[in-house]
Amino acid sequence: MKSRNIFDNISPLDHRYSLRTEKYQQYQKYLSEEAKIKYQIKVEVALVKVLAEYEICSKQVAEEIEKKSSAINAQEVYEEEKKTKHNIRALVNCIQRRISPEARPFVHFTATSFDIVNTANMLRYKEISQEVLIPTLKKLEKVLMDIALREKNTVQVGRTHGQHAVPVTFGFTMAEYVSRLGNRIKKIQENTLALRGKISGAVGAYNASSLFFSDPQEFEKKVLAELGLEAGIHSTQIVEAEYITDYIHSLISCFSVLANFSDDMRHLQRSEIGETGEYFSEDQVGSSTMPHKRNPINYENVKSMWKQFMPRMITVYQDQISEHQRDLTNSASERFLPEVIVGLLLSTNRLLRVSKKMAVDYKNIEENFAQNKDFIVAEPLYILLASCGHPDAHEVVRKLTLRAEEENKTLRELINSVEELQPYLDKFTVKQKDLLVNPEKYTGIAAKKTEDVVNYWRQELALK
Amino acid sequence: MKSRNIFDNISPLDHRYSLRTEKYQQYQKYLSEEAKIKYQIKVEVALVKVLAEYEICSKQVAEEIEKKSSAINAQEVYEEEKKTKHNIRALVNCIQRRISPEARPFVHFTATSFDIVNTANMLRYKEISQEVLIPTLKKLEKVLMDIALREKNTVQVGRTHGQHAVPVTFGFTMAEYVSRLGNRIKKIQENTLALRGKISGAVGAYNASSLFFSDPQEFEKKVLAELGLEAGIHSTQIVEAEYITDYIHSLISCFSVLANFSDDMRHLQRSEIGETGEYFSEDQVGSSTMPHKRNPINYENVKSMWKQFMPRMITVYQDQISEHQRDLTNSASERFLPEVIVGLLLSTNRLLRVSKKMAVDYKNIEENFAQNKDFIVAEPLYILLASCGHPDAHEVVRKLTLRAEEENKTLRELINSVEELQPYLDKFTVKQKDLLVNPEKYTGIAAKKTEDVVNYWRQELALK
Amino acid sequence: MKSRNIFDNISPLDHRYSLRTEKYQQYQKYLSEEAKIKYQIKVEVALVKVLAEYEICSKQVAEEIEKKSSAINAQEVYEEEKKTKHNIRALVNCIQRRISPEARPFVHFTATSFDIVNTANMLRYKEISQEVLIPTLKKLEKVLMDIALREKNTVQVGRTHGQHAVPVTFGFTMAEYVSRLGNRIKKIQENTLALRGKISGAVGAYNASSLFFSDPQEFEKKVLAELGLEAGIHSTQIVEAEYITDYIHSLISCFSVLANFSDDMRHLQRSEIGETGEYFSEDQVGSSTMPHKRNPINYENVKSMWKQFMPRMITVYQDQISEHQRDLTNSASERFLPEVIVGLLLSTNRLLRVSKKMAVDYKNIEENFAQNKDFIVAEPLYILLASCGHPDAHEVVRKLTLRAEEENKTLRELINSVEELQPYLDKFTVKQKDLLVNPEKYTGIAAKKTEDVVNYWRQELALK
Amino acid sequence: MKSRNIFDNISPLDHRYSLRTEKYQQYQKYLSEEAKIKYQIKVEVALVKVLAEYEICSKQVAEEIEKKSSAINAQEVYEEEKKTKHNIRALVNCIQRRISPEARPFVHFTATSFDIVNTANMLRYKEISQEVLIPTLKKLEKVLMDIALREKNTVQVGRTHGQHAVPVTFGFTMAEYVSRLGNRIKKIQENTLALRGKISGAVGAYNASSLFFSDPQEFEKKVLAELGLEAGIHSTQIVEAEYITDYIHSLISCFSVLANFSDDMRHLQRSEIGETGEYFSEDQVGSSTMPHKRNPINYENVKSMWKQFMPRMITVYQDQISEHQRDLTNSASERFLPEVIVGLLLSTNRLLRVSKKMAVDYKNIEENFAQNKDFIVAEPLYILLASCGHPDAHEVVRKLTLRAEEENKTLRELINSVEELQPYLDKFTVKQKDLLVNPEKYTGIAAKKTEDVVNYWRQELALK
Repeated sequence: MKSRNIFDNISPLDHRYSLRTEKYQQYQKYLSEEAKIKYQIKVEVALVKVLAEYEICSKQVAEEIEKKSSAINAQEVYEEEKKTKHNIRALVNCIQRRISPEARPFVHFTATSFDIVNTANMLRYKEISQEVLIPTLKKLEKVLMDIALREKNTVQVGRTHGQHAVPVTFGFTMAEYVSRLGNRIKKIQENTLALRGKISGAVGAYNASSLFFSDPQEFEKKVLAELGLEAGIHSTQIVEAEYITDYIHSLISCFSVLANFSDDMRHLQRSEIGETGEYFSEDQVGSSTMPHKRNPINYENVKSMWKQFMPRMITVYQDQISEHQRDLTNSASERFLPEVIVGLLLSTNRLLRVSKKMAVDYKNIEENFAQNKDFIVAEPLYILLASCGHPDAHEVVRKLTLRAEEENKTLRELINSVEELQPYLDKFTVKQKDLLVNPEKYTGIAAKKTEDVVNYWRQELALK
Repeated sequence: MKSRNIFDNISPLDHRYSLRTEKYQQYQKYLSEEAKIKYQIKVEVALVKVLAEYEICSKQVAEEIEKKSSAINAQEVYEEEKKTKHNIRALVNCIQRRISPEARPFVHFTATSFDIVNTANMLRYKEISQEVLIPTLKKLEKVLMDIALREKNTVQVGRTHGQHAVPVTFGFTMAEYVSRLGNRIKKIQENTLALRGKISGAVGAYNASSLFFSDPQEFEKKVLAELGLEAGIHSTQIVEAEYITDYIHSLISCFSVLANFSDDMRHLQRSEIGETGEYFSEDQVGSSTMPHKRNPINYENVKSMWKQFMPRMITVYQDQISEHQRDLTNSASERFLPEVIVGLLLSTNRLLRVSKKMAVDYKNIEENFAQNKDFIVAEPLYILLASCGHPDAHEVVRKLTLRAEEENKTLRELINSVEELQPYLDKFTVKQKDLLVNPEKYTGIAAKKTEDVVNYWRQELALK
Repeated sequence: MKSRNIFDNISPLDHRYSLRTEKYQQYQKYLSEEAKIKYQIKVEVALVKVLAEYEICSKQVAEEIEKKSSAINAQEVYEEEKKTKHNIRALVNCIQRRISPEARPFVHFTATSFDIVNTANMLRYKEISQEVLIPTLKKLEKVLMDIALREKNTVQVGRTHGQHAVPVTFGFTMAEYVSRLGNRIKKIQENTLALRGKISGAVGAYNASSLFFSDPQEFEKKVLAELGLEAGIHSTQIVEAEYITDYIHSLISCFSVLANFSDDMRHLQRSEIGETGEYFSEDQVGSSTMPHKRNPINYENVKSMWKQFMPRMITVYQDQISEHQRDLTNSASERFLPEVIVGLLLSTNRLLRVSKKMAVDYKNIEENFAQNKDFIVAEPLYILLASCGHPDAHEVVRKLTLRAEEENKTLRELINSVEELQPYLDKFTVKQKDLLVNPEKYTGIAAKKTEDVVNYWRQELALK
Repeated sequence: MKSRNIFDNISPLDHRYSLRTEKYQQYQKYLSEEAKIKYQIKVEVALVKVLAEYEICSKQVAEEIEKKSSAINAQEVYEEEKKTKHNIRALVNCIQRRISPEARPFVHFTATSFDIVNTANMLRYKEISQEVLIPTLKKLEKVLMDIALREKNTVQVGRTHGQHAVPVTFGFTMAEYVSRLGNRIKKIQENTLALRGKISGAVGAYNASSLFFSDPQEFEKKVLAELGLEAGIHSTQIVEAEYITDYIHSLISCFSVLANFSDDMRHLQRSEIGETGEYFSEDQVGSSTMPHKRNPINYENVKSMWKQFMPRMITVYQDQISEHQRDLTNSASERFLPEVIVGLLLSTNRLLRVSKKMAVDYKNIEENFAQNKDFIVAEPLYILLASCGHPDAHEVVRKLTLRAEEENKTLRELINSVEELQPYLDKFTVKQKDLLVNPEKYTGIAAKKTEDVVNYWRQELALK
């Protein structure tokens, strides 16, 4: 077995981040080079099984090929490739070497290399999505839902431009991410199911398979059905690029949601804000020189990973272009696609870990709210004045706000001192007047909306 | 009216390319700044209509606002903005100035600026998609379908790595783009329908509207329904970013398909290949110094436009990130989104124009095919040998090919001279032997597949 | 004159942002389509002047061409292009139409279109850089220098991870941007000077010009020297792409520095931080519904513009690739390059405007510093303990910090209560002990470094 | 030693491509995680050496630390990091554990983590550039120069728009890449030398070091000088981002030149063109089903690698932005930078291998030229007519070209039949007339220019 000290690897995915989670081994089962070859063998086996179904070869041949090929590993194929300079021919040779002369002709029969490569990749991306990625994202979604419901009544100042605006609740803040993450999970599900394979030969016209099958599209369909896949509508040497383009787009745009969440959490952890925190183990060193710090390193890491992987969408768009029935300028670039999936998985798992331990600092969240409490009444005041017929409500409140600042008074204090406003104020209902003195009640339907959003996505994603 | 010599503009969209098509005026109706303000007024009017429905204001007030606001233009709003330094407040002032004091309080009632801006943008993107973009793409799709069917039997050498591979037909080559473009049209349709608006106030919690409506989500729903839109599941100051992210992704990935098509057409027009051509008007100058040239400038232009607009997806992914209930670092960048739509429209129209005139050079397409005709038999030969039980078919054909090249013979000539092969050749059917001497018949099911693909997308897209 | 309501334009540069500054007219002089044609005429004139120098035509011919061509405008060339379908041939026709039959043959003599187009673009990019962009950036640099020096002693808490770290001064904070902006100005200067032209004909081998000149490279050199340019080392139909690639890189990377500065300023303006502010005119509306807000819209705008323009570097890298002696897939995409220059100029001018009015809130900056003042002593304490021989200084301080937090005491209070530390504390100098009680003095050489940085760049950029 | 089957790795750099070259081990010495830690130790050692110089610790202490730390490997540091959750603190612990209690306090003395991390990275990027990358690029440059000179007189049709234009020589075609690659090598050299380190503490103000040094900038300078580096003009927790931004830009823009070269070579290898070829070993399998093909897989691979790595510049531009004295959202993303260097190295080495074996097919290059030979005279004809005073030369030649095509004659044949032209033709010199019948002589100064370009870059890059 060709092995290497992992710290001699170049990619941080294969040294540092492979050690950051026990989940890495799970990813390897789909996304390593070893796994890729296992999946390619799966496709070769499916092919020969259907050949047997068509009675082109015997069932025994198919079984022999299935059984014998299961022992092949990447090392062996790579050794063979040194001679053939062609990876799938190498794999075929490795299979043929292990089987009886009678069986040999049926390996890879009528197929072109990329029938195998493309289909195997689609299959492993589909499987890791369904078996690992989506379940992990759903776990994170559930954690966010729990926090949202738990904090649905925790009043928090809403912030636009980084400035205090009107209030929300922290649960409502979290509901944003419940919704956006939920939406992306759904999109990933759809685009995963849309992944397609092909068994249509060197240029997609079923040239070789039509020598033997009256309906070669049916043959293709059966082979792919063995693997749980369907065929694309048209193919050349390759499956139409857009299936994978959409799939990676759904991953990248999901990654952006995680990055936004992380940015928000980072900022809520700023020294001056301090509304949320990451759990801090007693042994952990905050900084090599500043022992007093608690750094939002996990959220920083997710944002940073996004910066690394998001631009790779450019590669994917470029790879939509392939000359004629195919040029191979997408061959090397596509080999890096598994990294995007791993990047997203690492970040999702990281957020899962840290979100489970998310603490809200109720004292700080309240103090921050209190800071501009008095100004928060400006919005309802202006709207209520307008609704009571004040012709220039926005302007009058704007000036009042400036005056409050200059005179160092609260808006509430000023309101009653402005004679001009009294006729309008008299029309306010009790509840409306109450809001002007209790701005923390001015949270609209934040709590209800939080519940609605959680319920919507719980149902949409069939979460318990 | 503030007007300017168009050649004093900076953006090529607003000088050169605005002159390239009579369609530009159509695009302006949705995508100019003038149009944007018209759409914002539409949203303000929808809002006040529903206020009347709720009896918060009278029907007369709603009608007055609708009627009077229709005359407002961008020039006026921009003048007002110089004072307010705020674009929506400027618009509101412009409306209020034209109406009765009684009506004034109900303009923009309970709304925040971005309720209007975001919803208006979503609406105009939706409408230009449905009314202009998708119909134009469908026109192109139909032209491609026509060519595909017309040329379904025109034998063309298939090309992988830019090298001659096994044959297809030119119709099959076109069917690739029928399918990929069809697929993108469908995706654009889906993502257009998924665009969402919002009337949920400054931070999305319906703070203001809940002062007046027991079910402010219902109020939002009604306002958006007036415009033919639905509300997002959750919103802050802005609609969840992912609706627009998906929408622009579908445009960009569609653009890539056009770019790939253009690349293929460019290469098929190379001097040495010359399989297709653009119609060349007698007055047209090919090059300022080389009068004999026929340049594929339209296809080059489409590829070039793609290079300009494709990277803008990075902006869109970055704009998914907005701090807390919103920061405004997506404000200026989003203003450029209409350019992406115009870029795609210009390129689609260009391809439509040029594809209508696409000529196939049957002489060249045949001569090019003939060039490697003899080698094309290599694939069926190897597969047929394998199917007849030859244990090492691929290798034997590979060596034969090398020998053919060295001895400057055709593969067909050599086949019969190799004694070892005779027992296998004897097993070939007549039809199979026929292929070895008539490689132009080795097109698999290219013609049928072409028909299948055209029929599939005709149905899927409801094209006549 | 073909004119248009500016609000009918599509690009925000040509409506909204063209109104945001009186500088737009200055940009148009170099970067509009009208300007482009003026520059192309300049190149045609330089060419004919050198022809006269070589006595291929007479001085009178050159003068006639120079004089007559000056009246040509874009409108006229575009009209002609409708016939020729070729922009430079159209320009040549427009010139020829205005001059005597004797002069006509010498217009564009031996040149290819792109000799003119490429050289004209290089020239206008060079001139706007030297005459507008670099001077504007230098103005901003000087404003930043002034603030840095003014605030060199204003103690501010240093922040890493958004967490309070050890102190700096606000001048030192500004010095970062003095240095990074200075560095980028220098890079833009270098890359501007490196822009190159070409007069080497259709494929760069001087095919046509070598019919008439024994040393056509010398001829090229003289034509370019007329314009203040030099020739690239090699050219095909186009100048080597890397000159422009480097140039745009220097603009984009400068833009990133402005974006970073803007982010920092935005965050320092957060409601909870409030250390700096933008001047707020009394008429300005902060938000359409929340009159009390002061939003950092200018900094948000710069960040947003960066998000729009930064990804365009992908276009530039793609445009480095041109097949053989040139394909035209860079033609349309390059037409958008002026937008990048305008984007950077708009943002620089905006920052210049707002930075001139930058206010520091001394009360807040001090209060924020005070918040973690007690913990700031952790770093010097640990280092001093270590320097006095404590074997485990980092660990002991880390634990002390945790204890301080638990017991709600200051670190300073605790220090003296830990017996184990006394032998080390006794070794501290007076000045060192002083730091432990006056952490605001722990600013290292922040003030001096600020001066050094300002002086360095003042000299390096020859600023007064 | 933590080792792993290399085929269990995720990144293709760490499985497939690590096997593609014996050079991978060389890259590991600088760019693996193991190497990174070695470089970090180098920086820690340099620090303590200068402490000894300042007599803060003894020479013995410095020597002890140097000696003992040399045995530390990544495995050990990672084990320690599990406890500290901080990588540099882990390294410091590993060093301290191995040394005497007296020496311990001086490890990492006054430094912050990123003094070490940042400086170590800069150093290894600098060293691999100078010791591996630039020498490899120069080797490729020399191979390209050799081909250029060898083929300087090989007439080849010039191509613009993929259409035959006027002639060049194949040497001239290669000279383009000699020049552009030469230019990039020079840029990489400059930007490598510009890389900077820092020893300025946690926020860059030398807070800690100024406790012990009267001139902490001098101390920093000395530490960096030990490593062959200089300090940036200003730093915060990190070195100014622009040094690395420029460096990676120079790599990426160099990569684009290789990608363009590869595209050209791919197209020149098209079946219909066949002007150049890759050496084809007898064992190599062209395609798993099409044994007759010779595929330009190496050039395809380089283009594909470019598509993977070019977009990463977006990450680098994003990483220019770091909040205040630093946020850590650049930490993970920067860890991937070594991949860019490896990607460029792999592609350079691949091109070096394949270019050494580049074959020109003289028969094809001549036949392709002959194809439009007759039309090539159009350009000199038009120019010569113009120079002899024909008032409408371009137009007359354009029409003649169309007529030649219609009548299926050569332009040369037609010329003499057009009476109107005779007076002008009579003025042509013998040499000029000769060109009209021998268009292969119309190569301008292609050969001389090739020599000039090679000589220029040989000198500029000090190549033997």
